[in-house]
This record gives sequence, C-alpha cells and structure tokens, in this order.
Amino acid sequence: MYPNETIKNQLNHRSIRKFKNKKLTTDEVNLLIDVARHTATSNFRQSYSIISITDDNLKKQLSEIGKQKYIAESGHLFVFVADQRRNTLITQEKGKEASVQGNAERFLSSFTDALIAAQNVVVAAESLGMGTVYLGSILNDNEKLIELLKLPKYVYPAIGLAVGWIDQDPMLKPRLPREIIHMENEYKDITNVEEVLADYDQRVSKYYDLRNASKPIDKFTDLIANDMSKIVEKRGRTINALQQQGFFVNDEK
Amino acid sequence: MYPNETIKNQLNHRSIRKFKNKKLTTDEVNLLIDVARHTATSNFRQSYSIISITDDNLKKQLSEIGKQKYIAESGHLFVFVADQRRNTLITQEKGKEASVQGNAERFLSSFTDALIAAQNVVVAAESLGMGTVYLGSILNDNEKLIELLKLPKYVYPAIGLAVGWIDQDPMLKPRLPREIIHMENEYKDITNVEEVLADYDQRVSKYYDLRNASKPIDKFTDLIANDMSKIVEKRGRTINALQQQGFFVNDEK
Repeated sequence: MYPNETIKNQLNHRSIRKFKNKKLTTDEVNLLIDVARHTATSNFRQSYSIISITDDNLKKQLSEIGKQKYIAESGHLFVFVADQRRNTLITQEKGKEASVQGNAERFLSSFTDALIAAQNVVVAAESLGMGTVYLGSILNDNEKLIELLKLPKYVYPAIGLAVGWIDQDPMLKPRLPREIIHMENEYKDITNVEEVLADYDQRVSKYYDLRNASKPIDKFTDLIANDMSKIVEKRGRTINALQQQGFFVNDEK
Repeated sequence: MYPNETIKNQLNHRSIRKFKNKKLTTDEVNLLIDVARHTATSNFRQSYSIISITDDNLKKQLSEIGKQKYIAESGHLFVFVADQRRNTLITQEKGKEASVQGNAERFLSSFTDALIAAQNVVVAAESLGMGTVYLGSILNDNEKLIELLKLPKYVYPAIGLAVGWIDQDPMLKPRLPREIIHMENEYKDITNVEEVLADYDQRVSKYYDLRNASKPIDKFTDLIANDMSKIVEKRGRTINALQQQGFFVNDEK
C-alpha cells in the first residue's frame, strides 16, 4: 500500500499534544540536530540556529505565551530561529562590511532555512516513533519570546517544535483535496466554494480534536470564515517584532 | 550505523542538479502532492498552494530568471506559494469579511505552511530514490515570477523545487558543526571565528562543486564574507514584490 516506511509515516502524520514523561536522551537530540544540519540551505549560508529549551522556568514561560500546557511537558523543546547574525559576525571578523543582513530577501532566505530544517527534524523524529507538534503559538507574543531567548538583532524566531514519546492517539485530520491545492502553470482561484468543498466540509465535521473531544470540530469553511477576521492580539504586531530585530526597516523601494 | 532508512537518506542529502531525461509519472507527482497535503499546517489553515510547471516555455522562462539551465530539465518542477487568497475567497463566499490576510503574521504563517510542505516533498522524493534541488534562484526576479505564474494579491512564491531521477554523484557538502548551530535556552554569539571555524573551513575547502569541478570551493568564512555585502539586483527588491502582493503594507504599529 505504501511505497516505503518514510512515506507511510508522512502520510500518517498527526500532531501529538500529549507526551510520556520521558525526556529525549542527548544522543537522540544530537541525532535530530544532525538531521537539521544536513537539510538543504539557501546559498550554503546555513543562516538558521536551533535553541533547545531545557530550563524548566523558561519552558513554563513559553507555555504561558502559547497558552498550551503541553509545551512545557514534551520530551524536548526546540525553537528554530532565522539567523542573519552569525554570518554578519563572521563577515565582520574577516574585516569586511556586512550590509545585506536586514534585507527582506535575506530574512525570507533565513526563515526558509529554519523552516525546512524544522520539517526535516519532524520527519526524523516520527521515523523513530516519536510524536511532534509545531508551536506557532509561541509566536503569540513575539516581542516577549525574543526577550526570553535573548535574540539579538538580525535573529528572529521561526517556529517552536515539541518532540517526545507519544501518549495519545489522535485521528488523522482530513486535508483539502489534491485538486484544490495543486495547480498547473498558473494560480487558479477556488470557485463555488460550498459546492467544491461540500464533501471535504463533511469529512472535517466528523473529526474530533482531542483538545476538545466532546464534539467534532466545525466545517472547514466555517472555521476559515471565522479565522480570517481575527488575529491573536500581540501576534498582529509581528511587524514591530520584525523591525525591532532589524528586518523590514530600510528596504530599497 | 543509521537508525533507519529515513534518517540514512536525510543524513546523506545532496542537492541534485543533473537529472535523467525522464519525467515523473502522474502517480509519482500525485504521491508527492499527497505527502505535501499531510504536512502539519498552521492553525489548520492549509494556506499554501503548489503549482506544477509543465509548460516548456514557462520552464524556460523560470530557468532564465534563475540563470540555471537545469531548472528546465528536471523530472518535475514545483513552485510552492504562500496562499492567503484561497481562505480569503472562502470567507467572502461565506458572506463574511476577511481582514487579516495581508498581516505580516499571516504572511509568515502561510510562508511556513508552504516551506514545510516543500521539505516533506523533498524527503519523500529522496526516499523513492529521486534527487531534488530547491530553486531559490527563481526568486531572483520576484516580480517577473509573480507575473508569469499569474499570482494574484495575497499569494507569494515561497520556493521552487526540481525533482527527478539522479544523473550525477555530488559530494556530501560539509555542514557547520553541531555546537555552532545548536544553542541552549538563549542565543549565543559565535566568537573567535577563525579559530572555531578553522577545521570547518578546511573541510569546506576540500569540497568540489560539480557546477565548477575544476577547483574546490573557498573556505566557508570567505564565502560568507563575500556574500554578506551583495545581493542579486532584483532580489534586493523583495519588499516591492511583497507589497505588490498585499503583504507588509498596512500593518499596525
């Protein structure tokens, strides 16, 4: 049925939000870091870093930002950051001037390095039987997160990732049909939403989220319609955090 | 030596820039799209799309933007886009007002969805024995790319990805040491660059890039010092392309 174990695991990905009380070993963490290091990287710049959160108090503070208790209770907690600072420092130590580190292009390139490394770690962890959950929620208060992790200028948090040994069995969450997300040669608008997503909406409305297992979640189109008019308060100020870190400030126009 | 095949493949990742003259089958493409679909997604928004470039003329134009002939010669060419438009249209069809689609936070969330889906496809393709190469280079001229792919407002190209059957055997490119990219609890500056990267510089300077196989590449620190003061001309105007697409325009401050 599946061509190999890798793809079997990928097609059965579920986010895990309850972990056994067992920390990852140093060898396990090092292996995941090595997988991250071997991810592709834009122009060989390797312009990302990974911060392991091991301090209990810090975990608790991140958990408060994310409003999710399980953030502090995983087997290991990573934060992937876009990092234009390391290469800036390297350049300066070589006696040259670094000038492009705040450019939007470099920011996106760093952000890309951090994200694809994170996904590589997800796949590796799942191949070892561990569960994972991305923690976009720790970005709810970017400015606070930046302060807690002491991120200097030209460093920006891309994503949090909790990894650990699985202690729950969530359903597979239905995804948008292939023909909706896959286009050919040009962008194609979705039309007749209620019709083309009717079947998908039905399938989503049979999905139970273990965070609230008493009833299934809403239809996808209802979830989205509610989602597109509100933003977590401080998260709406993402541009401030970006500019504070030196990005999107002086771009040429 | 390796815990499993997935991690073996990940630790041996190399970008492939020469492919056999053999297109991916529809089944192979569909399988890769299905892997992308099952990637984690921020807040269940699935705010990314994938555009397959199958038109030969379009491939050639993308290849010209990227200044790399092999872009047009892979087994299959994908462009992953950050997509806040689909959910905007869904919301409007439901008779509600969408207001957050241009926010920096939503842009980064979409960009994240697109990137982690792309990396999942990379891992899947490599597990099948295919080679891959990310094509950041197609972003050299974002505005042209947006025009060619007819990307409407609130859609932005995240990354290109060429996939195909491997027809070269590049060396494994040395990565920054684990202790440089991995930190604990807070960001840590690199110091004494020439000393702490001396061994790494040596290893990089023994790496031969098949794009110019007559001599090894420069030391990492030299590559970076040269890289941090220049930017591909039109790529430096990334902010213009972002704003043209509706992002980073009216963010609250």
